[in-house]
Amino acid sequence: MTPGHLSRRSLLGLLGGGAAAVGVGGVGGAAVARATETGDDDSGTVAFHGEHQAGITTPAQDRLHFAAFDVTTTSRDELVAMLKEWTAAAEAMCAGRDVGEGGTAGGPAQAPPSDTGEAFGLPAAKLTITVGFGPSLFTDAHGKDRFGIAAQRPAALADLPAFPGDALDPERSGGDLCVQACADDPQVAVHAIRNLARIARGKANVRWSQLGFGRTSTTSTSQSTPRNLMGFKDGTNNLKLEDAGALAKSVWVAPGDGPDWMAGGSYLVARRIRMLIEPWDSTPLAEQERVIGRTKGTGAPIGREKEFDALDLEATGPDGSPLVDEKAHVRLAHPSTNGGAELLRRGYSFTDGTDGLGRLDAGLFFLAYQRDPRAQFVRIQTSLAGRHGDALNEYIQHNGSGLFACPPGVRPGGWWGEGLFATT
Amino acid sequence: MTPGHLSRRSLLGLLGGGAAAVGVGGVGGAAVARATETGDDDSGTVAFHGEHQAGITTPAQDRLHFAAFDVTTTSRDELVAMLKEWTAAAEAMCAGRDVGEGGTAGGPAQAPPSDTGEAFGLPAAKLTITVGFGPSLFTDAHGKDRFGIAAQRPAALADLPAFPGDALDPERSGGDLCVQACADDPQVAVHAIRNLARIARGKANVRWSQLGFGRTSTTSTSQSTPRNLMGFKDGTNNLKLEDAGALAKSVWVAPGDGPDWMAGGSYLVARRIRMLIEPWDSTPLAEQERVIGRTKGTGAPIGREKEFDALDLEATGPDGSPLVDEKAHVRLAHPSTNGGAELLRRGYSFTDGTDGLGRLDAGLFFLAYQRDPRAQFVRIQTSLAGRHGDALNEYIQHNGSGLFACPPGVRPGGWWGEGLFATT
Repeated sequence: MTPGHLSRRSLLGLLGGGAAAVGVGGVGGAAVARATETGDDDSGTVAFHGEHQAGITTPAQDRLHFAAFDVTTTSRDELVAMLKEWTAAAEAMCAGRDVGEGGTAGGPAQAPPSDTGEAFGLPAAKLTITVGFGPSLFTDAHGKDRFGIAAQRPAALADLPAFPGDALDPERSGGDLCVQACADDPQVAVHAIRNLARIARGKANVRWSQLGFGRTSTTSTSQSTPRNLMGFKDGTNNLKLEDAGALAKSVWVAPGDGPDWMAGGSYLVARRIRMLIEPWDSTPLAEQERVIGRTKGTGAPIGREKEFDALDLEATGPDGSPLVDEKAHVRLAHPSTNGGAELLRRGYSFTDGTDGLGRLDAGLFFLAYQRDPRAQFVRIQTSLAGRHGDALNEYIQHNGSGLFACPPGVRPGGWWGEGLFATT
Repeated sequence: MTPGHLSRRSLLGLLGGGAAAVGVGGVGGAAVARATETGDDDSGTVAFHGEHQAGITTPAQDRLHFAAFDVTTTSRDELVAMLKEWTAAAEAMCAGRDVGEGGTAGGPAQAPPSDTGEAFGLPAAKLTITVGFGPSLFTDAHGKDRFGIAAQRPAALADLPAFPGDALDPERSGGDLCVQACADDPQVAVHAIRNLARIARGKANVRWSQLGFGRTSTTSTSQSTPRNLMGFKDGTNNLKLEDAGALAKSVWVAPGDGPDWMAGGSYLVARRIRMLIEPWDSTPLAEQERVIGRTKGTGAPIGREKEFDALDLEATGPDGSPLVDEKAHVRLAHPSTNGGAELLRRGYSFTDGTDGLGRLDAGLFFLAYQRDPRAQFVRIQTSLAGRHGDALNEYIQHNGSGLFACPPGVRPGGWWGEGLFATT
């Protein structure tokens, strides 16, 4: 290992040991804190480059910082330059390196550090950074082609319809760009969003952002199913990275699905779903289980014994009524109710303090990847939404929403959006 | 181990394995999910009982959920009953057990579960729950004795003065009670606050709460110094649990310091300190280091080599000017500048989305324990506050504040506030 290939962790050891020649504001322009790109087992690195973007089927990390951006520049060249700079910064951070040449403390003393520093000394913590393009990046509210890419807008990136019961806050919805940063250390995820926001300054502003503290899904059979803030296991039947056939069918955009630049990409739907915690906590166990359609302790479907026992929507009890309620969440969200539609869910729990009435502002930040939102999220949510839909609607409220086209993975030397902007 | 002594983790194993007789809504009133009180090494349990409350000198856990409550009942008996119920619930949760007899899913099907369930299956994660009493619990805004304890209000629990530059938001300040929940798993900390808030319903409401995602202090020599969101190491010279002499001098209230019920307790000052991230990130490295008084890479005092090298406030450079700036944060906060006053800091970083202008609402949730705030926090903050004080003031803003008297530890069979309410 040469001095040019130090991970943040290794560097910390050096600095802590008193290697005062490095990093104390003296080494102008030196390349500080570099790690090998192939990753470092000890620091939990997820490869940045690949056919698909990382952070979609990557086994769900524990923490999230998600941000939606408004692009403020009207210059296509500035936007492209920013996306290139984002890509380089993300590649460095996902490898456990500082952003930029000087990093936290190795640049010229009279310039701002090229990295904000709060992740200095921390391992990569399986950081992934996933980028998406919102409908409004292609055409503005008046239908104007903002950056000469309107013709490349996929039909699948159709604005989501209004669903019955939606209570969307415009300040928590939409966005021209999104960045999903997931890591096992929240400081690493926050650091990633902050440094990208810093690079964006003057070209794009954070429109809204959301911290998630606990994953509510598993995207790999190697993970155990977590519980959401309703206390129930969530994501038992989620799509898993081990099922390549299901991913090809339901997650990855195929060549011919739409414009070429999206092949290998995926569409992301984000919904901020507040849980009405206080009424839920006052609800009897049997009613909670009826609403969800699973037992609370084991997570087994009603009438079954184990979590992964198959859901039998036809089963009836002694009185002939269905064991799984007609309006149970698991029934209405089930593929068999929705023409086989499935989603790769990747949500996180959030708790954002209390509202003006002393109630917890807490819930589930729902993230779902899919091949075509029209046939998947929209279809499923149409089954669920409204007072005649999901029994769960009495206890939740959708108050934020976003839709983004996440391009395919970046090849070494490439950049986010290259396919989109190179073809137009 | 008997079935009456199952930890949440053990129970999960049972349920996951299909022990359907337990926890599936069928075992009315059964004692579910109990662990031995002596703790479980595997699940990282911190002892709840002791001379002092846990969560003060306990090596700082990684995550925080803090809540301040307004007491709404006017009945002393109801308040006492609630404090007893809180104590029992906290004792259970800190041992990795569910709240109440039925727990997540073991109670009567027609009653709400006695535990909200989202920590079911998680280890205790070193959970500590620390309680304090605000000035307003003793006397209301008109000086009225609310619960017959006004005469027991310590002189040290004097309202904090207004400091120059304060921009306190009443909705993020004050409170009759506070609860600090710290754990290595945020879901465990959030679960603790939520279940206490649920117990409080009808007697006390959450006034404000704060999630902290990363500790910014170490309270033990066994921990490494973390970085705050300014990218600097924070808390290098914090008081440490290994220094019993310093704790006796500066943290624990001694018999004779005030009313007997506080002996063995400590006073907590909480301040929500927003960092003005964008200006800070645009500031040259040399200026950042001048403002703090330490180098960013190693954390060493300016002019020294290693983090723990002693701060020399008298040292001068070649031109005769002080190496550590006259207004540097470390100088003005240093004990030698403040008559020897020191604090046990236990702060956490926060990021609460963005404000209306697209700027990160992020910073440091400052928590500090001390023997007498008048001689410690107030003295130090008087040195720091205002435009003629700490150079850091240009980059921070105090927008929340709380002061609480945290009673001594609970003995087995005792309850929070027993000393206070038993003597009056």
